[in-house]
Amino acid sequence: MSRKIPHRLYLTEEQMPKQWYNLRADMKEKPDPMLNPATLQPVRAEDLYPVFCEKLAQQEMDNETRFIDIPEEIQDFYKMYRPSPLIRAFNLEKALDTPARIYYKFEGNNTSGSHKLNSAIAQAYYAKEQGLTSLTTETGAGQWGTALAEACSYYNLPLTVYMVKCSYEQKPFRKIVMETFGANVVPSPSNMTNVGRAILANDPDTGGSLGCAISEAIEKAVTTEGCRYVLGSVLNQVLLHQSIIGLESKQALELLDEYPDIVIGCAGGGSNLGGLIAPFMQDKLLGRLSPKIVAVEPASCPSFTRGVYAYDFCDTGKVTPLARMYTLGSGFMPSPSHAGGLRYHGMSPILSKLYHDGYMEAVSVEQTKVFEAAVLFAKQETILPAPESAHAIRTAIDEALRCKESGEAKTILFGLTGTGYFDMTAYNSFNTKSMVDYIPSDEDLQRSFTNLPKV
Amino acid sequence: MSRKIPHRLYLTEEQMPKQWYNLRADMKEKPDPMLNPATLQPVRAEDLYPVFCEKLAQQEMDNETRFIDIPEEIQDFYKMYRPSPLIRAFNLEKALDTPARIYYKFEGNNTSGSHKLNSAIAQAYYAKEQGLTSLTTETGAGQWGTALAEACSYYNLPLTVYMVKCSYEQKPFRKIVMETFGANVVPSPSNMTNVGRAILANDPDTGGSLGCAISEAIEKAVTTEGCRYVLGSVLNQVLLHQSIIGLESKQALELLDEYPDIVIGCAGGGSNLGGLIAPFMQDKLLGRLSPKIVAVEPASCPSFTRGVYAYDFCDTGKVTPLARMYTLGSGFMPSPSHAGGLRYHGMSPILSKLYHDGYMEAVSVEQTKVFEAAVLFAKQETILPAPESAHAIRTAIDEALRCKESGEAKTILFGLTGTGYFDMTAYNSFNTKSMVDYIPSDEDLQRSFTNLPKV
Repeated sequence: MSRKIPHRLYLTEEQMPKQWYNLRADMKEKPDPMLNPATLQPVRAEDLYPVFCEKLAQQEMDNETRFIDIPEEIQDFYKMYRPSPLIRAFNLEKALDTPARIYYKFEGNNTSGSHKLNSAIAQAYYAKEQGLTSLTTETGAGQWGTALAEACSYYNLPLTVYMVKCSYEQKPFRKIVMETFGANVVPSPSNMTNVGRAILANDPDTGGSLGCAISEAIEKAVTTEGCRYVLGSVLNQVLLHQSIIGLESKQALELLDEYPDIVIGCAGGGSNLGGLIAPFMQDKLLGRLSPKIVAVEPASCPSFTRGVYAYDFCDTGKVTPLARMYTLGSGFMPSPSHAGGLRYHGMSPILSKLYHDGYMEAVSVEQTKVFEAAVLFAKQETILPAPESAHAIRTAIDEALRCKESGEAKTILFGLTGTGYFDMTAYNSFNTKSMVDYIPSDEDLQRSFTNLPKV
Repeated sequence: MSRKIPHRLYLTEEQMPKQWYNLRADMKEKPDPMLNPATLQPVRAEDLYPVFCEKLAQQEMDNETRFIDIPEEIQDFYKMYRPSPLIRAFNLEKALDTPARIYYKFEGNNTSGSHKLNSAIAQAYYAKEQGLTSLTTETGAGQWGTALAEACSYYNLPLTVYMVKCSYEQKPFRKIVMETFGANVVPSPSNMTNVGRAILANDPDTGGSLGCAISEAIEKAVTTEGCRYVLGSVLNQVLLHQSIIGLESKQALELLDEYPDIVIGCAGGGSNLGGLIAPFMQDKLLGRLSPKIVAVEPASCPSFTRGVYAYDFCDTGKVTPLARMYTLGSGFMPSPSHAGGLRYHGMSPILSKLYHDGYMEAVSVEQTKVFEAAVLFAKQETILPAPESAHAIRTAIDEALRCKESGEAKTILFGLTGTGYFDMTAYNSFNTKSMVDYIPSDEDLQRSFTNLPKV
């Protein structure tokens, strides 16, 4: 008996989105503006030009344009690895014995191994268009760095990547992938920047953090001619580019006559989550439908669930504008949990606002539980997930098990952001039962909050 | 201007093949039969039952049935990661400035990272059906081992994998992937088998070979109750299962109104090549069309181009039946070239016969040239290829450059068997210019040939 519903649904190239969706256009209350930390005045696009490419700075500030055309050249690049499949997790459902229908949008079928390429190619394109001659960035798990290395190699743009030191050490092969695409990879904190040297002086053995790597990449960009900084998450522009994930997902579900009761994404800086939920959140903002939307974060770095909603620096070195967001404090140094891509002290200002206003929920999960889910998923669905993505799997499984108890046949959609091929050190520590869970104490968090800027 | 021709073409699930194609049925002259090395009599299916699952032994011997139904359960498993895309290499074409149209069938979009899963799931299915309680196998690069670990985990079948020692050492993370799927991974030669101990006694520092790992896996299988041996290449049954690659490719090309002038595949034991070319070779055998078909092998292990067509053992330990094939001698120990999946002394008997009868060509390429092609391809097409696959890329590029010279707009199809995520040690040696090319001397080969069995 053949199933009518396909395991994997690919849109055709004609069906692929030709515009990104800008969630801010439909928010009645917009995210609070970024502030200049010296003057506490709202930042204008022009103020960002020394750091960001101009077109991207404009996208960052644009709260009004609902749909933004994807340049033809980026559409063509997307076609090399998109559309990504929407997959029905038939085998996982069977293993869980749940009446729930579980779908996942799989973004890992490209060499960067994640959704990050969606924004990387856009940012490299606009940089090239402006005539820039080099870029800098940071990377945590290495997925963003790999994606940007691919994109920069495509446009022959030299790239320096500051890689969070503990990831650099856990993932030697990630570095080689980036180098294969021509990038210069530097472990952060490094002694190549003032901010790196200051952090090392204070704590020579630090494993680093995304916040710290961001500071270094910005310092390098603003002190180098023709160079700009690009960021793979948190920013409004990134969520805009990543909306292609949600747009494709929604369209594919419509072809199956489905609409999700629950949408689940892992949340580090918010790039995947913001992209995945965008069109579903639109339905909610416009009062058309009200899916449950869940952010999943690691218990080791719980910005939504244990952070405060406040103005804070986006980096450790305090060189960025202030953004109002859920934050653990820019000085927060997460323990070296393996989900390197989720080790960021803050959260996308858009998502922070939506969470604050009650449009979405958040849960935090411990990594041993996350890897249990990852291995179960891998064995059932033949895809080895990235630890980051496995946070969403954990919560999707928990929701499906709740459906089993209640007997409800809910439709669950989650984002499978990427593959775990470069996370085998983490899998090994899980396989050999040497993995431990890190949870910051209340005292640690309170101490971190005292350093928030006074606004 | 949007292109009419899609970058990636996916068949729908309805269009997916429901039968494998058995190339032998259309060969006027069949491959020579396997021989019992003691009696030199042809082996019957029953003779293989102590080593192979019965259904697979029957498929091994079946020279007549043209199409064999793919069991429903295997079809369902295929749907989790298939159809694989047929991709038009628009960017590579542009970079080469060639009038050729280059297509590749990409088999790397699953966790095993290669086409190997196509046969692994079939072999695990038949083993489960027969009530077997464990399996053994060997793996070179680790892709077959990973694929079989996935398939065995799906059916809860315990698995022991003998991994060629130099790959085991070059690819620590491959081992962890297999372990994550529950497999027991042993570096070969090991001291757990008689044949392994004998080889180690002779050369304690050997990096091992596929032939040696095969001997160990067979010894373990035949000495363990309820256990059988499975092999990821060389065998007729494997080529049968892999025919799905070629069948999908041909159908996708037909949808584009294309037919390849040249079909190119890398050749280790022949599993990918035999699968990819199957329906095109049928056209040739039946005199309908005559595409050029090219096998690409490493200069370090050149069984087609410098081997002899003779009866030989399939393993180093001389425990298998004799097969007539192109071989370098079962005692041939290839240098530790990085393309671990192509380090086999022999070649599929089906492909050997076709090559011997002039139906296909073969070239050998040096690995530095292969990695040059791999990096060019990665930068243009966003996929980081496995070193094995990159052999086919090298030759596809060479053919496309010939088209540039001659001005011919040929249609080129090649098999991109897998991804290189676990080959970063090799990429690193290329990036740092420390990669060297190994080519066996004529004397080495002659010495190896003297050990061929007298038939």
